[in-house]
Amino acid sequence: MQFKDLEHVSIIGLGLLGGSLGLALPGAFSSVKICGFTQRKSTAAKALDMGIVHEIQSNLGKAVANAQLVILASPLSTFEELFKSMAEHLPEGCIVSDVGSTKALPNKYAQKHLPKHVEYIGSHPMAGSEQSGIDFSRADLFEGANCIVTPTKKNTKKTIDFISKFWENLSMRVSQMTPENHDKALARISHLPHVMAMALVNSNVLEEMMLCGKGFLDTSRVASGNPELWRDILMNNAANTDKAIDKMINELTRFQTALKNNNDKKVLELLEKAQKQRDQLVQSKLKRKELPS
Amino acid sequence: MQFKDLEHVSIIGLGLLGGSLGLALPGAFSSVKICGFTQRKSTAAKALDMGIVHEIQSNLGKAVANAQLVILASPLSTFEELFKSMAEHLPEGCIVSDVGSTKALPNKYAQKHLPKHVEYIGSHPMAGSEQSGIDFSRADLFEGANCIVTPTKKNTKKTIDFISKFWENLSMRVSQMTPENHDKALARISHLPHVMAMALVNSNVLEEMMLCGKGFLDTSRVASGNPELWRDILMNNAANTDKAIDKMINELTRFQTALKNNNDKKVLELLEKAQKQRDQLVQSKLKRKELPS
Repeated sequence: MQFKDLEHVSIIGLGLLGGSLGLALPGAFSSVKICGFTQRKSTAAKALDMGIVHEIQSNLGKAVANAQLVILASPLSTFEELFKSMAEHLPEGCIVSDVGSTKALPNKYAQKHLPKHVEYIGSHPMAGSEQSGIDFSRADLFEGANCIVTPTKKNTKKTIDFISKFWENLSMRVSQMTPENHDKALARISHLPHVMAMALVNSNVLEEMMLCGKGFLDTSRVASGNPELWRDILMNNAANTDKAIDKMINELTRFQTALKNNNDKKVLELLEKAQKQRDQLVQSKLKRKELPS
Repeated sequence: MQFKDLEHVSIIGLGLLGGSLGLALPGAFSSVKICGFTQRKSTAAKALDMGIVHEIQSNLGKAVANAQLVILASPLSTFEELFKSMAEHLPEGCIVSDVGSTKALPNKYAQKHLPKHVEYIGSHPMAGSEQSGIDFSRADLFEGANCIVTPTKKNTKKTIDFISKFWENLSMRVSQMTPENHDKALARISHLPHVMAMALVNSNVLEEMMLCGKGFLDTSRVASGNPELWRDILMNNAANTDKAIDKMINELTRFQTALKNNNDKKVLELLEKAQKQRDQLVQSKLKRKELPS
């Protein structure tokens, strides 16, 4: 399929990401028809009301029957069943992608269940917040954010280019990684921060937390994320997350040792290293316009 | 001293907190004269330019000679020397306080060095950001934030009331704790988050961090704080911080065990507990108008 020929997109699952995708697509692809799949009547009504979709389907086969591009935007735990159920209904040449936060397992399920006449390629648009659900959908959710596309040897150059261009058209910064490398990196930069925020809140009591300042609120923000979604992500990427936590505990222990030894040079060195690295990160993101200046 | 009689305040050290205090005071105490102490010429010039002080002194004795209230707003590591040097110049009945992030050591130094004819009482206005320096001073820095006042048995009710009312007049929410309890609580709700943010950044490499989303940026924000200031805070409160890190490592290990055992119920339970607690925190803070709604 040529990029300019994209006319039918199906979004499977209409939460924050699926809903925002529906709101964003018309701005980037003026002639695209969007079909949304959900089995919740209230979500279906909202999707139509909010102008997220042109058509809504509660039957998965019908939802994908005319699609040139199918994007799964439901929880990771639903992927295997969805791939299985949609397999026989996908039209020849259709591209299937998803917005899941881990990429190795979705790829495995897709290879196992999808027919040969369609091509699966994983995507991870790194947009979102601690909020979830269609009500929080925003047309600008993806703007300026990173998206990692995760091709494998099975993908054609044409499809890799297509899906990359698709996200770029939504003003995302697209990079490529294998599904396995994606999951290793995300364990360190996304799944670990979530575990940390959770552990920080769980190691405190409400009465004391009420005294906290902005620092605590920011450090713990992601702990307000949807527990079911995060259970799926963390269990889906358990081995990598476990390693990332080990690395974190090593860093904490190293700092404890410096504190216990009253080693002010080492304490300062570790604080300076972190400050310098984070400042470089912020500067680089400002330069790339990934952050508001 | 009666509250209405407050006419002379000396601010020792003109960084973010000292500068913001100077900007905020005239709004709350219309007839107060502010004397600032700094030995940096550039800071002195800025303090006058920005309208932070009425008078600037590079001589500590002269800076405190007429003060009814002296507030130390310099790094913790300077406190002992400052108490020693100002001791003989403090007028009868003067109240001495500070804005330091730990309270047990400042109290110890004050008891050791200040003369009997003045009264020391610790304060911790929990305002600020990862920025530091006079340039970032803002008149509204303290508004709506928490301030912990740390009286001891040596304090009179009159002085406790005075200092509490002083911060309340700057629109702060004031609570009281002993210096020791303050340091234990702050280790958990402020010093630990800083160590965590630092460890998170130090356990990652820039190239990978560049792929991160908003979650990582928020979780790591405080790691951009001034390393020297934080070295002082953390070393000043080393034993409590060490215990807080231990508790954190226990929480991380508990989660790792659940992950390793593929115990999805336990993983969900820990995520739900954190989400619920943080939501309660945010709701309570919204109710108290400590957060913008």
